[in-house]
Amino acid sequence: MVGKSDVERIKVMHGAGGTMMQKLIKEHILKYLSGSNAEVPLEYLDDSSVFNGIILKSDSYTVKPLFFPGGDIGRLAVAGSVNDILMVGGEPKALALGLIIEEGFRIDMLDRILRSISETSKEANVNVITGDTKVVEKGSIDQLMLNMSGIGLRHKFLDRNLDVVKQYYGDRVYRWILDRNIMPGDKIIINGYIGDHAIALLSVREGLGFQIDVVSDAMPLNRVVNEALRVGGVVAMKDPTRGGLSNLLNEWVDKGGYGIEIYEESIPIRDTVKNACEYLGLDPLMLGNEGKVVMAVVDEMAEDVLKAIRSQPGGENATIIGEVTDKHKYVVMRTVIGGYRVVPPPIGDPVPRIC
Amino acid sequence: MVGKSDVERIKVMHGAGGTMMQKLIKEHILKYLSGSNAEVPLEYLDDSSVFNGIILKSDSYTVKPLFFPGGDIGRLAVAGSVNDILMVGGEPKALALGLIIEEGFRIDMLDRILRSISETSKEANVNVITGDTKVVEKGSIDQLMLNMSGIGLRHKFLDRNLDVVKQYYGDRVYRWILDRNIMPGDKIIINGYIGDHAIALLSVREGLGFQIDVVSDAMPLNRVVNEALRVGGVVAMKDPTRGGLSNLLNEWVDKGGYGIEIYEESIPIRDTVKNACEYLGLDPLMLGNEGKVVMAVVDEMAEDVLKAIRSQPGGENATIIGEVTDKHKYVVMRTVIGGYRVVPPPIGDPVPRIC
Repeated sequence: MVGKSDVERIKVMHGAGGTMMQKLIKEHILKYLSGSNAEVPLEYLDDSSVFNGIILKSDSYTVKPLFFPGGDIGRLAVAGSVNDILMVGGEPKALALGLIIEEGFRIDMLDRILRSISETSKEANVNVITGDTKVVEKGSIDQLMLNMSGIGLRHKFLDRNLDVVKQYYGDRVYRWILDRNIMPGDKIIINGYIGDHAIALLSVREGLGFQIDVVSDAMPLNRVVNEALRVGGVVAMKDPTRGGLSNLLNEWVDKGGYGIEIYEESIPIRDTVKNACEYLGLDPLMLGNEGKVVMAVVDEMAEDVLKAIRSQPGGENATIIGEVTDKHKYVVMRTVIGGYRVVPPPIGDPVPRIC
Repeated sequence: MVGKSDVERIKVMHGAGGTMMQKLIKEHILKYLSGSNAEVPLEYLDDSSVFNGIILKSDSYTVKPLFFPGGDIGRLAVAGSVNDILMVGGEPKALALGLIIEEGFRIDMLDRILRSISETSKEANVNVITGDTKVVEKGSIDQLMLNMSGIGLRHKFLDRNLDVVKQYYGDRVYRWILDRNIMPGDKIIINGYIGDHAIALLSVREGLGFQIDVVSDAMPLNRVVNEALRVGGVVAMKDPTRGGLSNLLNEWVDKGGYGIEIYEESIPIRDTVKNACEYLGLDPLMLGNEGKVVMAVVDEMAEDVLKAIRSQPGGENATIIGEVTDKHKYVVMRTVIGGYRVVPPPIGDPVPRIC
């Protein structure tokens, strides 16, 4: 007989977007659910999957608290799911909302969340077209959680973008924008400041109570992505949510088979966020963002893409933060003081329930 | 200032598939989220929505307990979402799984659920192609809840089916199988016994503890639906989940603008389920099912469709239970003792968390 203590159990880190989550997914979820005939299947572990030209995405949202500086669970859910459809080269076309609500939840709060979903959907040029509402008895769920699934179709600028990539890389290019696409020489671009979302959440978490003037970056990235694809040369694209930049870049290295070098001094971070990280002992590279996109762009096109992104709301502070290299297979950061250090993948995002 | 007691709050019945849920959806959810350009939009409140030929469905599953006689939350989720895609005339093509897991959940239990999802997906000829895993701290959710979203495409037999319908009704026929399609004279068919799922769940609920030899009917209905559409003449189709047969038929009456008469003696119900209902004071017409479909079929085709359904697993006990009428706009049941009684829509399913 196996003692109770021998039973393996789920830990918070299993859902925190780092190496523990990867392990859970690979050893358990893929064990049972891989092997479909999708064009971009589950086992690619990319931002969305693709079946028969239709992009499909599902994300659950368990953010705490539900309302936070710069947003709420509704805005977060639309932005999060829309962005994941954009990341593979899709245009979001329709969303599906699954609500799970605790008995006793205030209906005026539900209205606020629904209004926020409506407004953010308009911003993202998409509609919620179906949904489901479940209510569970008090104590069975922490207030309200939701799922936002969505479908997308091939982005109107995706083929144009891939044609530009092919000028440089020939046929070593996939039909979709995938993590595995990164190529040595690609410049790494991010569209703005890191860490705002996680620190904004922490600032209002019960018991933490520090005052900081930073708001969540949660936003749908349609306009930034449209402009980048219109210019062309985007090889890979991913949003640094759970596990932040360090998780994202390590996933690219794992899947792409090349190394990545980033330059510490180039990484956009607000002083307030940097100070909060120092105070709380957090690594800003591991903090989740909800309105950021990281792109790997053909070297020769990087400046043009950068300029195009900067013209868009949400892209004003875009910058090149590094490049893909074939010299090693790690994520390495050139530090401000001059040396290099390896950036390991996080075990998990240090801030739980950011999305 | 408004006192705390004046704040309107969510009740369990708001999620229980009856008139209270309809009110919540119409007054709150539709207020903010209606008005898309979908072919079958949210405001039809049908089993799935359709955008640009793509059927989209999302359902969350909060069933309690997670494992029950005849199934588990995984089987339930695949069956539930697949069936809703089938109900509008779709063929399920891909699923998306959103897991929300409580810290401390046993990983071997997660494996059982994943295996069940895998097996039921195979049965339904579909794959989970994408997903998301969230873990929340102990006490924030009751063990495990999940969302199963999915996409479908036009069923290979849908046009054939609609051609048959058009022979009788001409152009008063929609491009999809919708609740609003019902027409006077249509025969109402159900594919088997009602109430099994709800009673199977109740039999294992903590504190209730009655022994009864009945298992959940949870199953994907691909084969039953395929056969019915192949024969042709199916006007409307819906699965009697939350709120059971009485909710389903009242929704048809509301949306279709005609009345429905059912015959008590024809409604398939097991003696064990009937006895349990009497013992517990439950109306079997209001109990949720997870492997049942109710069809409104052109009178002249009803016997052929019935015969076709009966040849399929899950359809062996199919029977005609009533018809659509233009004599009134209610759901009316001819009782065994001879009279008629109105079947009102339930306020909500009397058994919470059946799905």
